[in-house]
Amino acid sequence: MQEPSDQDKQETVLVTRRDVLKMAGVGAIGVLIGSAGVGGVLAATGKLSPSSSKSATAPSDEEIVPFYGTHQAGIITPAQDYICLAAFDLTTTKLSAVKELFQKWTLESARMSTGEFVGTENTNPNIPPTDTGEAAGLSPSRTTITFGVGPTFFDHRFGLASKRPAALADIPPFAGDNLRPEWSGGDICVQVCADDMQVAFHAIRNLTRLARGTAVLRWTQEGFQRAGKSARTKDETPRNLLGFKDGTVNPDTKDANKMNQTVWAQSSDGAPWITNGSYLVVRRIRMRIEVWDRTILSEQEATFGRYRDSGAPLGAVNEFDKLPLDQKDSSGKSIIPDRSHVRLSHGDGSEEILRRGYSYSSGVDHKTGQLDAGLLFICYQRDPRKQFIPMQKRLAQSDKLNEYISHNGSAIFACFAGAKQGGYIGEGLF
Amino acid sequence: MQEPSDQDKQETVLVTRRDVLKMAGVGAIGVLIGSAGVGGVLAATGKLSPSSSKSATAPSDEEIVPFYGTHQAGIITPAQDYICLAAFDLTTTKLSAVKELFQKWTLESARMSTGEFVGTENTNPNIPPTDTGEAAGLSPSRTTITFGVGPTFFDHRFGLASKRPAALADIPPFAGDNLRPEWSGGDICVQVCADDMQVAFHAIRNLTRLARGTAVLRWTQEGFQRAGKSARTKDETPRNLLGFKDGTVNPDTKDANKMNQTVWAQSSDGAPWITNGSYLVVRRIRMRIEVWDRTILSEQEATFGRYRDSGAPLGAVNEFDKLPLDQKDSSGKSIIPDRSHVRLSHGDGSEEILRRGYSYSSGVDHKTGQLDAGLLFICYQRDPRKQFIPMQKRLAQSDKLNEYISHNGSAIFACFAGAKQGGYIGEGLF
Repeated sequence: MQEPSDQDKQETVLVTRRDVLKMAGVGAIGVLIGSAGVGGVLAATGKLSPSSSKSATAPSDEEIVPFYGTHQAGIITPAQDYICLAAFDLTTTKLSAVKELFQKWTLESARMSTGEFVGTENTNPNIPPTDTGEAAGLSPSRTTITFGVGPTFFDHRFGLASKRPAALADIPPFAGDNLRPEWSGGDICVQVCADDMQVAFHAIRNLTRLARGTAVLRWTQEGFQRAGKSARTKDETPRNLLGFKDGTVNPDTKDANKMNQTVWAQSSDGAPWITNGSYLVVRRIRMRIEVWDRTILSEQEATFGRYRDSGAPLGAVNEFDKLPLDQKDSSGKSIIPDRSHVRLSHGDGSEEILRRGYSYSSGVDHKTGQLDAGLLFICYQRDPRKQFIPMQKRLAQSDKLNEYISHNGSAIFACFAGAKQGGYIGEGLF
Repeated sequence: MQEPSDQDKQETVLVTRRDVLKMAGVGAIGVLIGSAGVGGVLAATGKLSPSSSKSATAPSDEEIVPFYGTHQAGIITPAQDYICLAAFDLTTTKLSAVKELFQKWTLESARMSTGEFVGTENTNPNIPPTDTGEAAGLSPSRTTITFGVGPTFFDHRFGLASKRPAALADIPPFAGDNLRPEWSGGDICVQVCADDMQVAFHAIRNLTRLARGTAVLRWTQEGFQRAGKSARTKDETPRNLLGFKDGTVNPDTKDANKMNQTVWAQSSDGAPWITNGSYLVVRRIRMRIEVWDRTILSEQEATFGRYRDSGAPLGAVNEFDKLPLDQKDSSGKSIIPDRSHVRLSHGDGSEEILRRGYSYSSGVDHKTGQLDAGLLFICYQRDPRKQFIPMQKRLAQSDKLNEYISHNGSAIFACFAGAKQGGYIGEGLF
């Protein structure tokens, strides 16, 4: 292991992940490094023209989600196939160090979103490469990187207690909670979503590396979802590991007014720095899939209040039909059972959240011999006190689904507004 | 939870995963279940014609890898993007029960490979669905499901000790091994590869469910890899989490003679039942990525003996160039260092293995606060005593890479020949 000295840092050339493919095609680089050592290689890469290889393909717009904007990407962005969610704890007590971290994170996240390498020192043999390399040649894969801060960020350490928004409430204990510290809390949250797990992992790993000396990982969870090949164009809803469609009643992300009402913090909400941001609640929900799999279909459907195949509410025809909450069968019982998940989630219809759930599978639970698999539940909202918390309180008390699930992780984060090019995430707070 | 009685099992209709999409389009099914209860729904699904919905799309040949054949799929099949590997332990002591399990597994694996549901009872409300449903509507995703049996399968329990091939050797301890029982061994191995993690998970989960009463999960590991969008047509090599291309010197799977020499067990090898099968060795290799990431590029490249960007051997130009093992620099030192990974793997060139590696990321190691990430190393070969074992012995003793990795899981399995339609995997042995 050798650490680079400052004088090793020579002039640099910007090399993108796709340039690597071009360079591999030309091939002369390796020889230059091998025989001549440092120096020559940088000049050589600078000389390569984009047309020098057949494998050079620019990413299409569909592969890139813009990083900069009024809002952070990854909140109302249509869900990608894979997620790596990471919670960090700060090891510094200097706010200036936190600010520098977010400045670095912003710059490099914007680069990774377009498929560029982290940093510019990736071919200098005398220092560690600034990018870890495993995403070289891969598509940007619609990568989004979304940042938030948790309640502990506002404790005594940084003098920011007065800036804590009331809506960044501590999540109260709920009936049946089985929370474990290793999947709960965190000073900072980074949500990376991408259509390629290797690209998502690469982002979390490189952001972790950039945080060295300032923050350390507290917990991470990988997840996946699919809604069929055509999901992105057809608004199809993905299925969870219980085999049911999950997220059907999400508010319409194309309706800007609706998003302002339900997802984005408003300037009138009391904490100016979070305006145009949102609140993320994450719950790691283990599913007792072996028990579920022994349950008859009608009972499964009564538990959710939906048909498994179509996703339609019981008593309705299509997935997106209105819930026929008042409809009774011939014996006078509600067709959508009183304790069904869909009825209790709906409540009086006043609480809406934007769900962004992913399934997870984390090997075998060696205590039980069963799969540690379930749902990485993620939701965004304008005010958790009026949205997630009352909804979950109701579900925790009565939901028929509780027989088949167990919440073992929990966290809440205030996710910043987006950054302008030249600015950085968190600028309004630090 | 209600268990079905036998008389609940009524007449069945074959419903594929794609039929579900069609049914969702038509929508009337839900109402039939909701109002009329059992019975009617089966008749109703039978009536649906494939043309009844716009969303009906047959899977293309590219999405299906044939399950039946001389060899099992998933060995020389070009690697898919995702893997779920599962090791099972048998809980039965009856060989007849094992045989029945493999008969069921064969039938349902063949169905899943084409995107069909497991079983035929997926719309009968009075029994648990035979398929768990989370892959409904998803593409077959080039799913392959590959079965093998480990050394413990040939112990006293089933009277098969005399059938154990000599090539199914116990893997000897290697220098530096850090093996953990929770990632090692197993009576049976099931390797599921697919281009969609949800589809791969679905297969492992349903095969586990089919094994209830006969076998239980011992360990599982999920993994991912990508080699760029065009990898499958251009034979590009994926990068591991150290940022280097991994698997460059794999033997050519299109060369049938080569495969017979290096991968497929031959009838002359001594155990007739394994002819046309192969031997799988799996190692779970944790990477100390935080240490690696602080290492300068030239040292990383000297460790592998390759250039990071191009994947070419040090001193050569292109990834697939011959290793210039005899080439020296001006000071007389080998350009490919004596302890480099590529030189020690190569040895005298007589040992070749077919690698099928996947990266893994399994959250944070709470003992160290670092990512539990690395390589799920998988290789196939004709005889591990002459291929993996001597190669790994050499690497374990001297490989420079050992500073950055730790083997914490290990297993070996004899993977059966393929099955003919109407036959089943393992038929020659049971």
